[in-house]
Order: sequence, then C-alpha cells, then structure tokens
Amino acid sequence: MDALGRHLLIELHDCNRSALDNLELVRDTLIETADRLDSTVLDVSTHKFDPIGVTAIVMIAESHLSIHTWPEHRYAAMDIFTCSKTMQSADVVGFLSTRLGAGNVQTVEVNRGILPLVRAGRPG
Amino acid sequence: MDALGRHLLIELHDCNRSALDNLELVRDTLIETADRLDSTVLDVSTHKFDPIGVTAIVMIAESHLSIHTWPEHRYAAMDIFTCSKTMQSADVVGFLSTRLGAGNVQTVEVNRGILPLVRAGRPG
Repeated sequence: MDALGRHLLIELHDCNRSALDNLELVRDTLIETADRLDSTVLDVSTHKFDPIGVTAIVMIAESHLSIHTWPEHRYAAMDIFTCSKTMQSADVVGFLSTRLGAGNVQTVEVNRGILPLVRAGRPG
Repeated sequence: MDALGRHLLIELHDCNRSALDNLELVRDTLIETADRLDSTVLDVSTHKFDPIGVTAIVMIAESHLSIHTWPEHRYAAMDIFTCSKTMQSADVVGFLSTRLGAGNVQTVEVNRGILPLVRAGRPG
C-alpha cells in the first residue's frame, strides 16, 4: 500500500529514569535518529519541565520526530513521521532502546496520506 | 482504558489547495486549535517548502500539535497529542475541516502511555 508518509508511534517503557530527564541526551538522541534516517534537520525545539520530564521536537524536511518523556513512569512517547521509503523500523527502535535503556517497546506504524487514486487500487 | 496521553491522527483530504500553501493560515489554525484545547503554547516552528507545502509544529505543555501539507494532493496530515482529558475530537475535526476546506476527513485516536499497572487491569 503506497502512502505519502510513514508514521511510527513508539511506546518506550521501563526506560532509564535519569536518561528520560536528561534534556541534552534526549535531544541528541532525536537528532542522531534523524541523521540515521538521512533526514534534513530544519529546526529543533526542546523544553525541560519542572520538576521532571522533557519534550524535544525535530522538524525535518521529510516531516518530524518528537519525544515526550515521563521519567516518573519510566515511559517515553516517540513519533517518527517521515516520507522516507527506506526507514528500517527495527534499526530505529533498537537504537532508541539502547540510548534510553528501554526494557519494553511497542511500535505501531501508520501510513499517512493514502491518496484517493491509491485508495481505489489504481496507481497514483 | 486510562493512558497518559491521547493522540489524534487526522487525515484531511480534498482540502482547499491555496489554504494548504498559506503558512500564516496553517500556523494560525494550529495555534487556535491549541487555544481551543486550553493548551499552553511553549514554542511554534514553521517551514515553507519550495515550491509548495508547509509544516507547522506547536509545542504545548501538554505535548504537541503538528501539520504537514501537500497542496498538490489537497492533503494534510495533522497530529494532536495531548494529555487533556476533555478534548472533544469531533469539535476539533469540525474546526479544522472548516479552516482548511477539507471535504473528507479520517481520524484515528491512539492512547499513548498505557502504564503496566493499568495494562494489568489494576488502578495505577
């Protein structure tokens, strides 16, 4: 099934608590993920919450990557939305799990932008 | 089912082509959506692509909103990730459809951050 974009919703559980509260580590992990996907980074936004938790969003020419962390629950929600046709989800998830010390990861991939002609089974 | 966050994936088809290429309109639509959700806006990133298409991402204290537009396909992919318990999806989708002239909208809602104790059926 062809689509304009691929969207990975990644649930990272049982992570390293201090990693999830380390803004620099989280931001660098997102940027390195973008680099591994051969993406073009356009902008990076981050925020450190008080008392704990961080958000980082990387806008890429191919869409975006985002992460929101709840260190108190050892949980992070990550999204990778890309137009890349070559992204290997397993590689990305493996890299993220290592960086954040995740013990339990669930991933859902959603096709975004399935156009009417494609939906009807005709090539777009 | 309780979760830390709710994530709406909104597929906006058959939109007004010029609306999707209007960076100011798209950005303001996202910010107004955040306001309607009583969100706290922390940062706004935008990009205008050459020759067409825009991206806008609004970081909110409750997570994020994003939109990527493909005016050539009259399509936009929007995401609303929020910790709000009160978001009325139908209201949000109605507002977006009007602003972007969408003729065909599909929405998927995904629960994010279902914690182990909640997954096991025990209150967290």
